[in-house]
Amino acid sequence: MFNEFLFELLGTFVLVAIDGSIAANLLWKGSANEGKGSLPLGAVGAFLAVTLGVTLAALVTGGHINPMFTVGMLLNGNITLTSALLYISGQLVGGFLGALVVAFYYRQNRLATSPELQVAPLAGVPEAPRYLHDFITSAVASTFFAGFILLVVSFNLGSLTPTFVGVGVATSILAFSGTSGAALNPARDLGPRLVAKLLGAKNVALVYGLVISAGSLLGGIVGVSLVQLLINLI
Amino acid sequence: MFNEFLFELLGTFVLVAIDGSIAANLLWKGSANEGKGSLPLGAVGAFLAVTLGVTLAALVTGGHINPMFTVGMLLNGNITLTSALLYISGQLVGGFLGALVVAFYYRQNRLATSPELQVAPLAGVPEAPRYLHDFITSAVASTFFAGFILLVVSFNLGSLTPTFVGVGVATSILAFSGTSGAALNPARDLGPRLVAKLLGAKNVALVYGLVISAGSLLGGIVGVSLVQLLINLI
Amino acid sequence: MFNEFLFELLGTFVLVAIDGSIAANLLWKGSANEGKGSLPLGAVGAFLAVTLGVTLAALVTGGHINPMFTVGMLLNGNITLTSALLYISGQLVGGFLGALVVAFYYRQNRLATSPELQVAPLAGVPEAPRYLHDFITSAVASTFFAGFILLVVSFNLGSLTPTFVGVGVATSILAFSGTSGAALNPARDLGPRLVAKLLGAKNVALVYGLVISAGSLLGGIVGVSLVQLLINLI
Amino acid sequence: MFNEFLFELLGTFVLVAIDGSIAANLLWKGSANEGKGSLPLGAVGAFLAVTLGVTLAALVTGGHINPMFTVGMLLNGNITLTSALLYISGQLVGGFLGALVVAFYYRQNRLATSPELQVAPLAGVPEAPRYLHDFITSAVASTFFAGFILLVVSFNLGSLTPTFVGVGVATSILAFSGTSGAALNPARDLGPRLVAKLLGAKNVALVYGLVISAGSLLGGIVGVSLVQLLINLI
Repeated sequence: MFNEFLFELLGTFVLVAIDGSIAANLLWKGSANEGKGSLPLGAVGAFLAVTLGVTLAALVTGGHINPMFTVGMLLNGNITLTSALLYISGQLVGGFLGALVVAFYYRQNRLATSPELQVAPLAGVPEAPRYLHDFITSAVASTFFAGFILLVVSFNLGSLTPTFVGVGVATSILAFSGTSGAALNPARDLGPRLVAKLLGAKNVALVYGLVISAGSLLGGIVGVSLVQLLINLI
Repeated sequence: MFNEFLFELLGTFVLVAIDGSIAANLLWKGSANEGKGSLPLGAVGAFLAVTLGVTLAALVTGGHINPMFTVGMLLNGNITLTSALLYISGQLVGGFLGALVVAFYYRQNRLATSPELQVAPLAGVPEAPRYLHDFITSAVASTFFAGFILLVVSFNLGSLTPTFVGVGVATSILAFSGTSGAALNPARDLGPRLVAKLLGAKNVALVYGLVISAGSLLGGIVGVSLVQLLINLI
Repeated sequence: MFNEFLFELLGTFVLVAIDGSIAANLLWKGSANEGKGSLPLGAVGAFLAVTLGVTLAALVTGGHINPMFTVGMLLNGNITLTSALLYISGQLVGGFLGALVVAFYYRQNRLATSPELQVAPLAGVPEAPRYLHDFITSAVASTFFAGFILLVVSFNLGSLTPTFVGVGVATSILAFSGTSGAALNPARDLGPRLVAKLLGAKNVALVYGLVISAGSLLGGIVGVSLVQLLINLI
Repeated sequence: MFNEFLFELLGTFVLVAIDGSIAANLLWKGSANEGKGSLPLGAVGAFLAVTLGVTLAALVTGGHINPMFTVGMLLNGNITLTSALLYISGQLVGGFLGALVVAFYYRQNRLATSPELQVAPLAGVPEAPRYLHDFITSAVASTFFAGFILLVVSFNLGSLTPTFVGVGVATSILAFSGTSGAALNPARDLGPRLVAKLLGAKNVALVYGLVISAGSLLGGIVGVSLVQLLINLI
């Protein structure tokens, strides 16, 4: 049981440490690649981070590293309540710790950045939050992503499963990132946002983070349920 | 039988929803990546969209999600008339529904775009249509792509089959997109073009869409026939 | 025997038709992506073209689609003289026919380009030829590539073999293309150069093409021999 | 025993010859792609170079081609002292020889570059060395990379193992290269730096190379130990 907690923590830790470090490399002041960010690079970074994180977690658990997928699986009876709680707490702690690695590895670059712009590599902040709109887009994007993960998991792709989950997240980013919101993983958002707050960043938008995370959870439930229906059809 | 219809519909739905959303992210006004489109990004987007769509459809059907390939297979006796009709109607409906997702997910960005430029993420519009030229280029490009798909399907690559079909579409785009036309999939064109029309876009070029779709169908017949000949040689 | 000739022809045909079309899309006047060429795009194009060509040829032959590799295999006793001659003649004819597809698919764009610049998508032309220098660089680059192919073939990677050969060509391009020359495949060079000449291009540099092709053949012999030595060591 | 030395040498030779040539293509004066370097291209180049090098070495050895991983494995009792010494001496010699290929393949471009800028494709030189900071960042980056390699090796991924190690190095570069330092492989650094010195480059920063290599070795020990702990947990 402790291992379930530990490996979901480790997988999410790797996901956030890698994805956040790539973003910091592209965003924080004075880093070697400041200002070189782009849509494909963001998608590739998320692909690598998710693939590695899932690979690590899946040694012991189902390799969720994402509360919206875990909640979807729980409500469809695919995982016990005890496991779900262990998974989710591991994910939230792992996200928090991964963000600490980003914040301290790029410490000099973070401190050289104005407090208003320190949040970005850790969690998304909209120029003007549209709560309802972004709740919906996060739900739609997460519906697609959660359904995709469940399909992949159902295929028994063996050692290629994490790679396909990574492809799913990269695809979701390419397709759904154009309008703000489109959150895909509450553990990638909440812990890192808290780290930004604790380290003195401004405009952390905690309420906004909770709203799009809630949208994401809704999407997880819808996506898993829809694909479960499809699988039963076959 | 209903499942054949449903899964070709679902696969084509995913193909158009993803490929169209990526294009909308790059083209419609005010999206986060407006104006950042490029040849490689278009090829990668199509690769991901086709790979995911084929993966989904292939759970139940042959994973065509493309009327030109289905018609080619029908005329070469590789699929029954009933199945072909179920496949094609599923594909056309799926393309229509996928385009609706794009249109509503990026609704605010679409409405901010001038009506003349709203068609682009949904279906290609030439500056000055060259009907015969583009009928021929669509036929040539589809010949290559259809022949490629049949080769891939003949290899029994298992869970890698959809990935290779995706590689084929990306390659076709890189090689054949330089001169206007080069349509590869009537279901990616017709339903989405109709959606654009219904939602008030200007310059929808429905006739042009029918011409290049006809070219694509011809290419599907030629490509499948040629590769069938080759396979019989071996 | 006819099939050996035919499938080496078909594989090389696909290689040149795809790789050349991608280059034409990026270089010839008025194509949708004119002037957007880049080192990574060239490497990716060659990767796709070689992977598809090898996949097709390997249905029947060893999937060489490259005279420098065939000559290296012949001199190391890995293929009979009869097969080698069938392979090489198929490769040269296939390269010629593939270049015709490029020239006619992008006919309007080719004719809009000045005759001095029409050669580029079909075969490389240096600003100021350095015959000895480029003979040597072509030999070094081909040594690496030929040795790499033989290693890959020896691994029995099954359906992934063509993909790895494609990775080898992409890597060679990234590493060795910086100084002019570095020809990797005489069939990719000679037939297409002849097509350019026949269709009225200027500055076709036929002698230069023969010099770097000779360098490439030398590299094929060296590379295959060195790796054969290594394989015998293990 | 000689084969262990030889194949670690050959693998590291390929790694440095390819990775260094790609960098020279992008950095040295007058090469076809001078000034076109970018973060993704550097990551892809390292991915290809490491994947090919590991593939070659792994025919005979464990495919380390990296002293920091070998030292980590030695201190955790996963390899004998004799093998470790053979591996490491092969790696150092291979790195030296690989850098010679780069220096002579791009000889004209190197000589056209000012002596202060000749080091860059061979080994990293900081604008203003921060010895302690870069010792630490190299240790952190190498901890991640070494742990990742050990996980991958433990999975028995067969012919895909080298590809995954290549993914690990690309990910490490994307995530950790933003702040100077972040050395991942002493054999990629020390021999090439010595070659630069011997061929007359200025600002070779030998002491800096030793400091970040020591950081990397420390990271190798920590990373292998941590993952060994995890593996014992499962």
